[in-house]
Amino acid sequence: MIIGVLGPRGTYTEKAARQWIEKKGLEEDTVLEYCADIQDVFTLLGEGGCDVGVVPLENSIEGAVGVTLDMLMEGDIHIIGETIVTIKHCLLSRGKKEDIRVILSHPQGIGQCRHSLKEHFPDAELRTTGSTSHAAKLSTEFEEMAAIASPETAEMYNLNIIMPDIQDRKHNHTRFVVITRSDDMQTMEGLKEDAADCSYKTSIIVYLDRDRPGALYSILGEFAKNDINLTRIESRPSKRVLGDYVFYIDFEGNIDDTIIKDTIYNIEPQVAMLKMLGSYPKFDSHCESN
Amino acid sequence: MIIGVLGPRGTYTEKAARQWIEKKGLEEDTVLEYCADIQDVFTLLGEGGCDVGVVPLENSIEGAVGVTLDMLMEGDIHIIGETIVTIKHCLLSRGKKEDIRVILSHPQGIGQCRHSLKEHFPDAELRTTGSTSHAAKLSTEFEEMAAIASPETAEMYNLNIIMPDIQDRKHNHTRFVVITRSDDMQTMEGLKEDAADCSYKTSIIVYLDRDRPGALYSILGEFAKNDINLTRIESRPSKRVLGDYVFYIDFEGNIDDTIIKDTIYNIEPQVAMLKMLGSYPKFDSHCESN
Repeated sequence: MIIGVLGPRGTYTEKAARQWIEKKGLEEDTVLEYCADIQDVFTLLGEGGCDVGVVPLENSIEGAVGVTLDMLMEGDIHIIGETIVTIKHCLLSRGKKEDIRVILSHPQGIGQCRHSLKEHFPDAELRTTGSTSHAAKLSTEFEEMAAIASPETAEMYNLNIIMPDIQDRKHNHTRFVVITRSDDMQTMEGLKEDAADCSYKTSIIVYLDRDRPGALYSILGEFAKNDINLTRIESRPSKRVLGDYVFYIDFEGNIDDTIIKDTIYNIEPQVAMLKMLGSYPKFDSHCESN
Repeated sequence: MIIGVLGPRGTYTEKAARQWIEKKGLEEDTVLEYCADIQDVFTLLGEGGCDVGVVPLENSIEGAVGVTLDMLMEGDIHIIGETIVTIKHCLLSRGKKEDIRVILSHPQGIGQCRHSLKEHFPDAELRTTGSTSHAAKLSTEFEEMAAIASPETAEMYNLNIIMPDIQDRKHNHTRFVVITRSDDMQTMEGLKEDAADCSYKTSIIVYLDRDRPGALYSILGEFAKNDINLTRIESRPSKRVLGDYVFYIDFEGNIDDTIIKDTIYNIEPQVAMLKMLGSYPKFDSHCESN
């Protein structure tokens, strides 16, 4: 199995992928394919260059990863798994703290360290990269450059840890999703088996009918009526006009459960569009191998 | 009156501020104070360096401006107005299209042009700046640099328009809010008068009680019961643990209206925290001078 992840070596996405691979017992059958950015993971998957992709969805400090949400909406993609990775950003460089003029990272990395950067490097130039490890790789070039990335990348790219804890909050976690092409779902069905004992989560996108005020309240009512626990609701611009949104809703349960099937059945006529992103085993730190 | 905006000269925030100033008929009494980034506008306001600040809140392509949401939560801040600006991003440079190696802009500018950049400049290095006009100013330094900014900044900073429409979608609008210190609300009351004929909007932040499933549904019910139109609901990490959110809710109506007052009164005991961000005249392109 080929798994598309953010590259180069050492990204948190790679860590997420390895966590999922280990849980599924797929260590011997998988090859990682490194992509330059999140959009490329979706493109590679869409073109059949990989069987599965792993992408970040949301972070506990900086929130939703916009590009992932947009690509989930655009593509013919299904979510087949999720995993959560502990983020521990360091500031890495070849040079010394006082030499740093340029700081590189993924936009999420920069966002997660906003206050720290403002405090310690108010005048540094910020450059965004496709991933944190790409930032690390690039910052090997000049002593005045530093990267926000994981401590593991320091070793990988021969950099010094200038500041070990640069994120704004000590607790920092990112939720990743494992995606596949919708037409490839059958092939992936086998992967579900070992998680039969775990509880499931389902993700959908809905576009509300603009002419029906209270539409969001009404569809949340369908979940409430059946005691279905919503774990997340995220709005994202529909990109048509300002003030027009689609909603990404995650909830507990499996689309194979009658109660979930019925709820979706009741919601469908109430919305202008409903996209099923998939049902997948809920990440549970207690029942995960990592 | 001193108004804090994103600087240097030529930002969309400045345009938003001038639009609001003109509507309020304050042209002769105001001085703009340019800040390096959004966080600095809040800091300047908090320290009394300006009376009012103008900051971007959400964009029709790239969505919420995370730092603004976070600062609205942190500070003792009230919203007293909103305005919407049409965004028309161009690619500006001293050099030619084929020379461009580095593209600079505010993270929102880069996000709004993600697909275009990927298509036309797949290998360009992306650098984030505090504002679009700062990007324009910096890109005067080297021919290999280009900025995503407004066409007006081309003239201002003596740059060529390399690509006139670089945003991913033709229709692109940003909503800005006008903020003041909560303890300064009285002074600002006078500004409300001229908008007596306009309809109002109110913004609140709620943090739901995690032990009450269906809490979001329940508070949306309070709005639905009274036929109050929600114009926006946005989740943002509480930054405590992953999966824990605060909700930013905008709705039609004024906190001085009995029905709104009653609704808030009913919501308060149902949530762990409610922050009133303020009631302000709703932006209406038909009744605006611009």
